[in-house]
Formats: sequence, structure tokens, C-alpha cells
Amino acid sequence: MRVDLGNALSTTPGVSEASLERLDEQVAAAHETIEAGRADAEHGYAALNLPDTADPDAIRAAVEPFDSPDAVVTVGIGGSALGAATLSAGLSEPDDPEAYYLDNVDPEHVTRLLDTLSLSDTVVNVVSRSGTTAETLANFLVVRDAMTDAGVDWTERTFVTTGESGNLRGLAEKHDLPSLSVPDGVPGRFSALSTVGLAVAAIQGHDLDALLAGARDEASRLSGSLFESPAYAYGAASYALANRGALTNAMMPYSEDLEYFAEWFAQLWAESLGKDGLGQTPARALGATDQHSQLQLYRAGPRDKLVTLVRPTERADRDIPETDLEGLSYLGGSSLGELLDAEFEATEASLAAVGVPNVRVEIDAVDERGLGELLYGMEAACVLYGELAGVSTFTQPAVEWGKRAARGLLGGGDFEEADAVSEKTRLVVE
Amino acid sequence: MRVDLGNALSTTPGVSEASLERLDEQVAAAHETIEAGRADAEHGYAALNLPDTADPDAIRAAVEPFDSPDAVVTVGIGGSALGAATLSAGLSEPDDPEAYYLDNVDPEHVTRLLDTLSLSDTVVNVVSRSGTTAETLANFLVVRDAMTDAGVDWTERTFVTTGESGNLRGLAEKHDLPSLSVPDGVPGRFSALSTVGLAVAAIQGHDLDALLAGARDEASRLSGSLFESPAYAYGAASYALANRGALTNAMMPYSEDLEYFAEWFAQLWAESLGKDGLGQTPARALGATDQHSQLQLYRAGPRDKLVTLVRPTERADRDIPETDLEGLSYLGGSSLGELLDAEFEATEASLAAVGVPNVRVEIDAVDERGLGELLYGMEAACVLYGELAGVSTFTQPAVEWGKRAARGLLGGGDFEEADAVSEKTRLVVE
Repeated sequence: MRVDLGNALSTTPGVSEASLERLDEQVAAAHETIEAGRADAEHGYAALNLPDTADPDAIRAAVEPFDSPDAVVTVGIGGSALGAATLSAGLSEPDDPEAYYLDNVDPEHVTRLLDTLSLSDTVVNVVSRSGTTAETLANFLVVRDAMTDAGVDWTERTFVTTGESGNLRGLAEKHDLPSLSVPDGVPGRFSALSTVGLAVAAIQGHDLDALLAGARDEASRLSGSLFESPAYAYGAASYALANRGALTNAMMPYSEDLEYFAEWFAQLWAESLGKDGLGQTPARALGATDQHSQLQLYRAGPRDKLVTLVRPTERADRDIPETDLEGLSYLGGSSLGELLDAEFEATEASLAAVGVPNVRVEIDAVDERGLGELLYGMEAACVLYGELAGVSTFTQPAVEWGKRAARGLLGGGDFEEADAVSEKTRLVVE
Repeated sequence: MRVDLGNALSTTPGVSEASLERLDEQVAAAHETIEAGRADAEHGYAALNLPDTADPDAIRAAVEPFDSPDAVVTVGIGGSALGAATLSAGLSEPDDPEAYYLDNVDPEHVTRLLDTLSLSDTVVNVVSRSGTTAETLANFLVVRDAMTDAGVDWTERTFVTTGESGNLRGLAEKHDLPSLSVPDGVPGRFSALSTVGLAVAAIQGHDLDALLAGARDEASRLSGSLFESPAYAYGAASYALANRGALTNAMMPYSEDLEYFAEWFAQLWAESLGKDGLGQTPARALGATDQHSQLQLYRAGPRDKLVTLVRPTERADRDIPETDLEGLSYLGGSSLGELLDAEFEATEASLAAVGVPNVRVEIDAVDERGLGELLYGMEAACVLYGELAGVSTFTQPAVEWGKRAARGLLGGGDFEEADAVSEKTRLVVE
């Protein structure tokens, strides 16, 4: 991963090189904290050890019973789905088993997916550390029932990824299901490079070793200076810009294969850093498409944004045929990849010309190695940002309130949060 | 469309009912401006007349030659794709012709799509008002070439939606292609209810009349008071909250079928209102999925957000099977729809409990009528917001700079913007 901060130096907001040099002392201190946390495999920091602690052989062995299914359906939500989805979106080829994600409880969507699948040729991957996540368990009960109705033995088509105890662990033991363990100390949003994120990649036949090697390479570049580590350069600059008013981080990859990466990043960034009144709101975008949508706002709207432009420097290209259409001859003889790169650089310059900060992030290619670098790099950037901001990066206290309210509303216990729902203030216009 | 502002009154930022009453005088004046613009079919305002001016018979007739294709590929970008994509995402059933959108110039993505399609059973819908949009024309040249290579007569499988003159109009006349006209005075991001948005819906067999009836119904509720018009209630409250610090608008539908609606809204809001240093950044979210991702930030992060929660009040439901799994008996006997609604209300209350403003928007169902109401309502809300803010709602000056730079980079002329690209400041960490 390469990070270019040049277009964030003399912008509004902006961070001067001198400011970054002063900040580098805090980066050095934060790096020591991070390294100590990694050495003790403390909660959260343990995720940064995954390139060494993940066991690709064990993951491959666990999914080995499922030889070339038509489809693999991951039933999980949040961090239990986004890492795997990012990898399958980035790496899938048309001949791979199709990867689906049931990460919502929309009944029409669930029914439509189940009606589409040949369940006897489908593998179901249930992911929940606790084994009690309401959305995931509800969907699993529905999918299991649909398999039974279709005459498919669900115990032959299901594997679970869960903690050492709980409902799903018990189920795996009772029915002898293949299973994987969610590693200790790894929060869901940091689990892409663990069993949670890698099992679907294994079923699809992607190269787990190259993924982990890319991550390991990025890890080896963590050091006590933001000027020596691309991950820390990104994390420190984002933090400095947020402090100076860039409360929105528009994540804009120039690659359809990285569209899901922006979703994954949005969870990582929002759930890790959005606390104590701090944090940077991730806005998911896609280049070049959003040049015809969001760019007007980024360039001419409030100066509360950092725009992060991500691209691979290599990709399979495709020529644009020659044409005699008026005014379009410049396109003929060029290629779609050249057009996309020109758009990327034009957007960068367009923002820089009016002083909107933007950062360039590049990987060599959207392949296993590149994704390993990118995901690990962004995780390390996030952890550094959290250290600098002094927030509790690895917790998510604000999501619990709503869970208790929803459970109370469904009669799953007596929760005072549920009472607040019925006391809602109304001002209805219809 | 029903709008409930109750949870935005006593929040931070928040707008009191008394403030809304004072603002209502400005709403009345803005409504007069809007009605005058509509009466004269002025640029932009003309879009609010589409429920009456769009001609569903003409649209159906234009696509009638393409009887039940396997797929329809729309080649267009920005407003030339998002409206149609929102309708097909919201309305498609498994047996409908599959709708694809080539709204990016990623060569790998284009190649993958072309390899997947049976081109002889595919209809290509090329959409560009000017006929010179670089991304669209490049993709069209590639698709046309691929059809020829596959032995398919592209002139039999292509229709165009374009202006009264230009490249695509000339092409349609030369090859006798079915064609539709982009109506005058309708900017791309306001064109969902015109030929631009409705042609794919017609091919898929959706009910254009019901779509327009829903929009007409919403139009009939525009009045000189925000307390009488759901669209104006949403637009005025968003404006008032933005003025008070809610510079981000998190658009969070609780329906997979509305995921694309959030993309469409993001363009409408960003490109119309993001100018003169003003505007509200749309952040696309999806309920309940993003409760496990963005909710932590919305509840505990910076107080610069309005969260808009959208749902249909009716949908096909699916029961959750009974279970003896520990602690989950409360789910059995409930349904996915009930769980989703409980999550919706819990999120609302969770934000309200800590004073984060949120607005509830409801339609009866994600069907033609409901989408007609919702799209028209949000367009009218946007136009009102623009009037109140005093911005030029219907222009997009900031996107032009980048287009000239990209064109210059590809050798399509001498543009000073292209020079700025090579003068980029660098601070690379690798």
C-alpha cells in the first residue's frame, strides 16, 4: 500500500508537513502502545497479529467437505459478513462458487434469495461469535427450515464460525458440523483476516497464503514514524484532518471490485472511532461513477471533508474501439483503463485546485496480495487514529441500547429501553 | 409518503416546532417560486411536472420491439442510470428481464459483464442527453463492438435516450434505432420519472401509470405550508437542521429493495445542494444491517448528523420457525418483518434517547405507487431546500473542471486543467 498525502498539505482543512512532523512524536508513542498490545495479544490489538496467527490450513481443512458448491451463503451481520464480502467482491471470478450474504432480516429479500438457490448445492456459513445475534439466528432458523422443506439435510450443508461456547458451538457439537473458532481478542470489524473473513475465500479457492503475506508485508512496515509506514501515514493524516474540521471521510475507490471495500472501511472507521463525540463519518463513494454524483458536493460544499481516492495501479484493460462519432475520436485508440486513470487524476486535481484535501492510496492490483495489504493497512491506520484520539477503539457500546429495545419489543424480556419506543414524540405530516 | 419530524424537535442539533412555524413563511414564499417555475416549465422546475408531462404510452411503444429480452443493459452514468436503477432494484421480480447498469468505466467489470450476457438476448439502452458523455460513449463503443464480434446486429438490439440533436440522435436516425427524448428542462438527477428512468421499468413490465399516479398524488400535496406537505416537511426540516449543524444526512432505508434509492437520493442531494460552501453530505446506510456498523457513530459521534429512517409499512413477511436454542425462544413465532420493524423503532428510540435528530419517512409499500410518491417527494423536498438555502439547485458547475482535465489527459484537446494534474504535490509514504 502506498499513501500520498501531498494533496492534503495546503488545503482547507489541511495539515502542514511541519504539523505532521510534530504529530510524529505522538505516533511514536502510539506505536509503542500498539506494539505492547500486540505482544500481549490484548483485546483488539490481537487483530494486528492475524497475519501470523491465522491458520490457513485449518480453514481450508474445515471447508474441505464442501467441494465446489454452486453457492455459499454467509449468514452473519456487521463484521461477521463485511470482511468475507469484501474479499469475495474483490476476488471472485465467474466460475467460482457464488457468494451471498444474508446480513439483513428483510423478509422479501430472504425469500427471494432462497427461491433462487439450489439448496442442495449450497453451503451455509453461519457466523456469530456469541451465537445469539438476533438477525443472524433468525435468518439461520429460516434457512435451516427452508432446507428441510426442500428435502436437504441441513447438517450436511452447514458449517459454523463461532466462539468456544454458546448456541452455535453446541449445535456444531450435537450435529457434528464442520466448525471454525472466532479467535480471541479480535473484534468483528477487525476479523477479515481471520476464520471469519477467510472461510468463504477458501471455498472460492482464493489464495489465503498470499492474502496473509500481503498483510504481513504491511505489518512489517509499521514503525514509530508516520513517514515510514503507509498505514500510519493514512491514520495520522486522517486524524489530523478530522481535528481540523474534516469530519467526513469520503472513501472513493476507482474499481468496481473495491466497492465493497468501502462498505467494510465504513464499518471499521465508524464503529471504532465514532465515540465520545469524536470520529469521522465515512461516506461511501465509487469512482468514476460518483464524479457524476458526489463530486459537486465534495468540491463546492462545506469544507468538512477528506476525500480518499484508492486505486490499483495494474488491471486487465480493454481497448475503446476507434470511432468517427463527432468529438469522440480522442476516445478511440485509448482504453477504458486509461480513461479511468485520467478520471482519477482529474478528480484529484479538481479537488486540489480548490483546496479540498484528498489522499491517494494505491495497491498494485486488486488481488489477494493487494487486498491483504489494503485491509491490514486500514486496520492499522484505524488503530493508530484511535490511539491518537484517545478513544476506546475496540468497543461498540452504543449499539447495545437498540438491541435491548428490539428484544424487549419482541417479547424477549423486560427491557426499559423498549418502553422508550412507545413514548416517541410525533409530528406527522401526511 | 408520510413524514414524522417528532424525533428532530428536541435534539442536538434540533429544530423546535416554533422555529418550524417561523420557517413556514419562507416555505410559503418558496412554494410560490416553485409553482411559478412549474407554470413556466423553467429549467429544473419542469421536473416537478413530470407526473403530468411524461407519456407512458410513448415509452411503452418505444421499447415494444424488444419483447421479453433476457437482460437490459443501461449504458449511462449519474442521473442517466440512477433513476432507472432505483426503480428496477425496487420493483424487479425474479422472472423479469435482468437489469444491468454500465455506469463506470472499470475495464474488468465491463469485460465480466459482457462475458456473462447472452448478447443476442440482451437489449442495450444508451442514455446521454448530450451524446458526448465520455464514460457512456466509451462503454457504448465497447458494447457495440462486442455485439458485432458475437455476430449480433447491434442495430436490432439498441435503443437510445438522448437530446434532440447530437451523436446519439444522429446514430438513431442513421440506423433507425428506437429512441426516446430526454425532456427539456429536466436535469439528469431529476429524470427518474421521465423517459430516462422509465424505459427500463417498461421493459421489465412495471406499471408506469401507477408510478406516475403516486408521484401525482405527492405533487397534489405540495402547498404553502410545510405542515401540510410531507415533501416540504422533509425538505424544510433538513434545511433547518443543516443550518443548525447537521451537515450529514444519513439516509437509512429499512428495505433491501430501497438500497439503491439511497444511492439515488445521494446524487439528488449532493449535486443539487452542494454548492457555495453549503449542502448536506448524504451518507448511504441500510437498516437493519448498518445498526451493526454505522449506528455506533450516529449515536455517539459528532453531533453533525440527521438520520433519515425510511420504511414501507407493508411487505410480504416470513415467519421465524420455533426454536429451543437457548435464549432465542422469543424469536420463534415472530417473523422477520416484525424483527425488522422492532429494529427500526429501536434505532429511532436509541438515537432519540441521546438527542440525535432523526426523521421517519414511510410509504405503504415498495411498489410502483410507493416509489412514485417517494421519488417525487424527495425531489420536491430537494427543490424546496435549494430555494430556502438560496443555491442554484439545478446546475452542477463543479463537475466540469474534472471532465476537461480528463479529456485533456487523453489527448482530446488542449485544456489548462490537464496541466494542473502534472503539477501535483507529492508526499509519498510506501
